[in-house]
Parts: sequence; C-alpha cells; structure tokens
Amino acid sequence: MRWRYILNIIGILNIFLGISMVFALLWGLYYQDRSVEPLLKSMGITLLSGLVLYLFTRAPKTDYISHKEGMAIVAIGWVVIGFFSALPFYISGTFDFFVDACFESVSGFTTTGSTVMTDIEVVAKGLLFWRSLIQWLGGMGIIVLSVAILPFLGVGGMQLYKAEVPSPVPDKLKPRIRDTAMILWKVYALISLAQVILLMLGGMSLFDSVCHTFTTMPTGGFSPKNASIAHYNSVYIDMVVIFFMLLAGINFALHYQFLRGKPLIFWKDSECRFFLFTALILTAIVSFNIYDSVYKTIGQALRYGSFQVVSILTTTGYATADYEQWPAFSQLILLLCMFIGASAGSTGGGMKCLRVMLYLKYCYRELFSLIHPRSITQIKIQGKPIPEDVMRSILGFLGLYVGLFAVSTVLLAWLGVDLVTSLAAVAATLGNIGPGLGMVGPMDNFAQIPYLGKWLLVWCMLLGRLEIYTVIILLVPEFWRK
Amino acid sequence: MRWRYILNIIGILNIFLGISMVFALLWGLYYQDRSVEPLLKSMGITLLSGLVLYLFTRAPKTDYISHKEGMAIVAIGWVVIGFFSALPFYISGTFDFFVDACFESVSGFTTTGSTVMTDIEVVAKGLLFWRSLIQWLGGMGIIVLSVAILPFLGVGGMQLYKAEVPSPVPDKLKPRIRDTAMILWKVYALISLAQVILLMLGGMSLFDSVCHTFTTMPTGGFSPKNASIAHYNSVYIDMVVIFFMLLAGINFALHYQFLRGKPLIFWKDSECRFFLFTALILTAIVSFNIYDSVYKTIGQALRYGSFQVVSILTTTGYATADYEQWPAFSQLILLLCMFIGASAGSTGGGMKCLRVMLYLKYCYRELFSLIHPRSITQIKIQGKPIPEDVMRSILGFLGLYVGLFAVSTVLLAWLGVDLVTSLAAVAATLGNIGPGLGMVGPMDNFAQIPYLGKWLLVWCMLLGRLEIYTVIILLVPEFWRK
Repeated sequence: MRWRYILNIIGILNIFLGISMVFALLWGLYYQDRSVEPLLKSMGITLLSGLVLYLFTRAPKTDYISHKEGMAIVAIGWVVIGFFSALPFYISGTFDFFVDACFESVSGFTTTGSTVMTDIEVVAKGLLFWRSLIQWLGGMGIIVLSVAILPFLGVGGMQLYKAEVPSPVPDKLKPRIRDTAMILWKVYALISLAQVILLMLGGMSLFDSVCHTFTTMPTGGFSPKNASIAHYNSVYIDMVVIFFMLLAGINFALHYQFLRGKPLIFWKDSECRFFLFTALILTAIVSFNIYDSVYKTIGQALRYGSFQVVSILTTTGYATADYEQWPAFSQLILLLCMFIGASAGSTGGGMKCLRVMLYLKYCYRELFSLIHPRSITQIKIQGKPIPEDVMRSILGFLGLYVGLFAVSTVLLAWLGVDLVTSLAAVAATLGNIGPGLGMVGPMDNFAQIPYLGKWLLVWCMLLGRLEIYTVIILLVPEFWRK
Repeated sequence: MRWRYILNIIGILNIFLGISMVFALLWGLYYQDRSVEPLLKSMGITLLSGLVLYLFTRAPKTDYISHKEGMAIVAIGWVVIGFFSALPFYISGTFDFFVDACFESVSGFTTTGSTVMTDIEVVAKGLLFWRSLIQWLGGMGIIVLSVAILPFLGVGGMQLYKAEVPSPVPDKLKPRIRDTAMILWKVYALISLAQVILLMLGGMSLFDSVCHTFTTMPTGGFSPKNASIAHYNSVYIDMVVIFFMLLAGINFALHYQFLRGKPLIFWKDSECRFFLFTALILTAIVSFNIYDSVYKTIGQALRYGSFQVVSILTTTGYATADYEQWPAFSQLILLLCMFIGASAGSTGGGMKCLRVMLYLKYCYRELFSLIHPRSITQIKIQGKPIPEDVMRSILGFLGLYVGLFAVSTVLLAWLGVDLVTSLAAVAATLGNIGPGLGMVGPMDNFAQIPYLGKWLLVWCMLLGRLEIYTVIILLVPEFWRK
C-alpha cells in the first residue's frame, strides 16, 4: 500500500470539495443569508487541509492502482469527504452536535437522503443548496465507482460491467476511470439540465428546481421543503420527478448508449427490463391496495402509489404521501422495494436489480438441478453465461447485506429504538433510501434517534453506498498484512 | 414416476396413523371424556382409507426409489397425514372450521407448535394427547427425513450428512432408510423416556409429563396448559425442559454416537459447538438486557432469558415469560433465533446452524478473495472441504428461505394482518417455531388470523419443515415432465 499515493488523491478530492463550496456560497451571497460566513470558513478549512495533504504527499505519477489501494481510496475518501462537507452545517450552528452535521453530510454524499433537520425551511438557502449539491456530487462519485472502479476491484459481481464500460482505453485502470468518468458525467449533467428546465416549466423557482434536480439524479431525496415534493401538490411536477427518478435508477452506461443512437437499448438490457417491470407491477399492486382503503379515485391512488413506489425502489426517498397511513401490505411492499433497489451502474442503492435477478435465476437452477441431478446448467444474462466466481461474489454480497441488516437492526434496538423503527431505519440507510417507517417515517426525521444510533446509521449508509465489501474489508486483518 | 408405488406407501403411512390413534383413545377411555367417539370415528376413516389405498395399489416389491418419487412421497405424505390427523379435532367440534383443525394438525406434524386453540384446558384429554402425539410422530418423521432421505435427494446441502449416517447398508436407499430410522428412533425413544421420568420427579402428572415430552423432543412446543411451561412455575421443570430442548436441537446422529461410547462427540462436532455457543451467548445478551429492564434479580433474568432463547433457537416455542413485554432488543434477538434455528439432523427447524455457519464462512471467503484475487480457498468444516455443489445448494436454500419469508409476509399483510404480526407469524411458521410477536405472541394464539392467512401459514409450516425444496419443487413444471 502506497499510503503517500492514497493520501495524495484524498488531498486532491478535498481541494475539489473546497472549490465546490463556491456554488453554495454564490447562492448565499445572492440571498444575503447567514450561510456566507460558515461557508467561507468551511471552504478555507477544506481547501487548506486539501492543499497541505496534497503538497506533503506529492509522489511520482503512476498509472497503476492496486486492488488494496483502490479499496482504501474509496473507503477513506468517502469518510474524509463526509467529514469536511459536514463543516458548513456545524459551523453555522444548524446542528448543535457534530454527529448531526456528519449524519446529514454522509446522508448527502451517500445519496441516502435521511435527514436530522426538524425544520428544513428555516435553514439558510446557501446551506440548503450545499445539502443538495453534495448529493449531486455523491451521485457523480457513485457512477464512476460502480461503472469504472468496482468492476475492476471485483466487488459484489460488478465485474459483469467490465465489458460494457464505454471507454477507449482498454487496459490501465487509471486512464480508463478518467475517460469513463468524463463520458458518464456528461450524460449525468445533460439529464440534470433537462430536469431543471422541465421543473421550471412546472412553475418551480430556479433555486428549488436546481435543488430538486441535484437530489433526484443521484436518487438522493433531500428536499429544501419540509413537505418534500408534496409541497407543490402538482401532478405535472410529480410526473416529471417520477420520470427522472426512473432515469436515475437505470445504468448510466445505457443512457450513454441511448444518446449514441441506440434507442432500443433500454428494452434490450435485461436488468433495465426487470427494473421497469418491477416498478410497474409494484405500482399496480400498491395503487390497487391504497385505492381500496385510502384514496377516493383510482387516479389519486395511481398518482401517489406510483410516486412512492418509484421513489423507494429507485432509493430516492421523496414523499408525496404519508405512506405510514397506508395499509400494512403497501408498507411491506415499500419495505421490499428498499431491499431490491435500482439498477447496478445507476446512482440508486439497495441490493440492485441485477443481483436480485441473478439470485432468482440461481434459486431456480438449484430447483432444476434437484430434478436433473446430473445436468449442469449455467446461469445466463442476455445469453451470456455468468462466470462462477462472479456468481459467488454476488451471493456473498447478498448474504453480507442481509447479515449486516440483521446485526445493525439488533444493535439499533439495543440503543432503545423500537422494533419497527429499527428495522426500517437500517433498511432505509443501508439501502441509501432516506425515510423509513415508525419514528423515521416520510413525515418524520432521524433527529430522535439516539446519539450512538446515528453513528451506527452513518456506518450503514457508507456500507450500503460502497457496496459493503469496500468498507468491511478494512476490518479484515488480512487486508493490512503485507 | 410410479404413482402406484407412491400411493401404496401413503396408504401404509395412513394405516400407521390410524393405529397410532389408539394411544390417544386409551387416554380418552381412562379419563372417560368426550374424545372417545371422535377418536374412534377418525380412526375408522383413517384406517379404512389407508387400507383401501394400500390394497388397490399393491405393487411388486422394490428397493429403489428415484429422486422424484422420494420428493413426491415426502411432500404428499406430509399433506395427507396433516389432513387425516385433523379429523379428531374437527369431528369432536373442537374447531368450527376445518381450516383450524388442519392448522392445528399440520402445526403438530411439522413440529411447529403454533396453536389456534383459544382455551386449551377445556379440550378433552384424549384430544390433547393426540395433539402432543402427532408432534412426537412428526419429530420421528423429521429425523428420518433429515438424516436418511434428504441427504440422498441432495436437498439444501443435506448431502453433507451422507457419510455420517449410522447404517450398515451403504448403497440402496430403502434398506438404508429403514435401518437408519430404526437406530435413530431408538435414541429418540430413549431420550424421551428419560425426560418423562425427570419431569415426573419434578411433580408433574404422568399425563402432563408425557404430553410435554412428546412436544419437547420434536421441538414442537404444544402444551396441554394455557400458560405453557409457565403453568408450573418451577425452576426444576424449567431446567429439565431447557436441557431436553437443547438435546432435541442437536443432530441425532451425534446422540447415537455418544451412546455408542464417544463422550466427546458433541464437542468435536463443529455444528454442535456453534449451536451451543450461540445459545450460550444469546442467553447472556438477552438476560443482561432483561435484567436491566424487566426482572429484579440476575437469577430471574437468567432463568427466563435462557428458557426463551433456548426455546426459540431450538424452535420449540414453549413460553415461561411474555417476551413481548421485553425490550425491542431482546425481541429482535429472539426473531433472529427464529431464523438461525437448531442443528441439521435434529428435530429443530429454522435455517439450521450448519447452513448459517457455512454461509458465514462463505462470506468471509469472499472478503478474503478480494484481498487475494488469485488465491483459491476451499470452505472447510472439521477439516473436510465442502464440495462446491453442496455449497451452492446451501446458498440456494438460504436464498429461497429469505425470499419465501418476504413474499409470505407481504401476502399475509395483504390479508389485513398488521406489519409486526405478519413478519413474526411467517418467521415463526416457516421456521417451525410456534409463537411469534404482535397478535401471535407467546400469550396469544393464531385464532385471529384471517381464513386465507391460516392456509398461507399452513403452507409456510410445510415449506419450512420439508426444507423448502421438497415442497416447492412440485410447483416447477419440469418436475412433472417425463
């Protein structure tokens, strides 16, 4: 492990983070609000630490990153950025405790969207913009992570994407990451621009449009409004947001190919089909269930049902309805959505559709092999067989996911949180969704969670976002041996 | 598929079932209660249908059973026996609806122990004895199933036990099953006898001792008392029951080897160690938690904590305390126990310690292989490597288990059951435990579950008991093709 090299990259990340605070500062200056001073202070601290780290660790240029180094950069990078981006919240006094500021910023950078703010609308605009911006930046980070870095590290079956990454450089990791990232970020920015325009056409202010776009595209879910998207009570805005949440839940490599002139690519990709069909079927089921019991017209049921299913399945976490008032059946479907999650290579969280699909095929194969004990069948996706080691990696991931969910839930309950809240809070943070059930429902927030519980959930957000392996591997003694 | 042969065996099973009703009848005659007539009628119907089936399907003797036939006999046999053993409950008018009678009998034969009886103590003794007897017989069925049949069918990793089955005939399935079964049943009967004697020494009546033994050894959990084991409020009886629940949760092949003069076998077997350690550690954790909040002395906390952890972990389901009054943390630990379950080859349910152990090793190996991508490490148990196909089978099982848990929970909620009850009722029936949480807690019963929900839970009990594959395979179209 070349620590010098790792710290150097972390330094560069910090410099970027510091510079990005300028955008929040501009809004603060425009609105002349209380965010200017804390943002300036935070920027100074972040830039300075970044520069010091960068200058003191300068190393010869290299095009090679080892497996271990890749893991360390990803995990440590996310933690460091989570720490520094919490500064504006803490320095401004938005939160009394540093844990709350950290919870909010990690929830932002991991694109989770769980909040500890009890009254969002009283917070200065500059800070609210910062809160949305870190989600957007986090989304960028995720794209490059899931499409360009994790496949090479062999994490959780992401190897499957090795072949599909749109990049001209085939071999070396670093140039490849750089090129892939540039292409995908352009796509990300382009779709974001479209959403801002469409939201403004619906009568949303520029500030709100940008803030909501910055939290839709990364499937984040922070809103500058207390009532989330329900604030606008507009069918048009609901539909626009649903559409862009769905886009954000699809592998960005597909968007790239679509823009390159392959209009049928969404249909041809089996994971994308699975994702869209799941959204469609669960919307139908939930809408029917809530039409029966909560809403008067089928139109209303479809409007709120589709929004909430898409919001949770894509792991965005916006709310237009208090789904805790819905029947237990619909709540359980939403809980299930938290586990399924969006597509691999998207900004969404959860277990990811690809893994769920492959796991279903795996179970079916096991049944099949009981009937024909001597037959050897391979699991295929779009006609291509999945290598056994990739399949192993995926099953290991799913196992770890469920295991960590169980352990974290028990730990949260140990800290005095009730049963349903514990289950849902862990599911919502591990899957990077946002709101849960019980004390942390869509109309509540995470402020009431005990001190240690907040740190536990911060840990869950990081675990979920970095595909578990990348974080947990730092706890394996083997990792640190030469 | 030789249907003639399959039906012939089902006929024989029915004849045995009819004969076994004699034992309940004897108690009915002794107590001169209202169970005599319904038991006689049920006996007649069961014996007659068994005889008719047997005589009309007589086929040439065979020593060979195919995979498919084995599956069909197991699944159909359990359903048919569940149906006929419901007759005494239905004919006696204990339940108004046949679904309740079926729920009770399947809960018995699958050794689950969930009850729909609202007042147990008013039921005639003959029927209560029948209720306990079917659990004992179900336990016998499970032993032969898990140690002698499933390993040969390759279900869910049970192949691991192929080598350990104590039997002199190495190759043919049928004689092997017969011999293995005889040996293990002797062990089962011997331990049962010991428990009856020890319970009577504690002041329990012969009837109660036999009934409780008949539901401890199969980790069933039916009690002839409304308050379950709490009725006796005796530390001695609690300890005796804990001890025998633990015995029942250990692979019966180990008991056989112990009796053959290998005193250290329990320590040498890694699954048994895992099982006992889990029981010990979780007891310590739960006791500490409830000492803090519910009980005044550490002794009381240990007494109730150990009883409930062992009762749920072994999937017996007796209660000495209303654990719904315990903190959410302890309730979640108990919920976790429902999933872990007892040892493979025991009468206990759940996922089984063996599978949980191997899954943990699997996850660790995946982490390890990320650090050393080129190393190939094998998962071992007691020094022996686990073949990849067995590992696959185990992971498929765990996946199906969690998947069926999720789907069944959602379906139960769809029928109008609340969230916590749905989660716990499915966990408790799929794992063959007995009581759950919420509406179906240790001091409640399953009577309030809606009509279709009861059938769903009957299905869950069968799925869990027959290791999922054996039941679900009947739904795969491939199974029915030539």
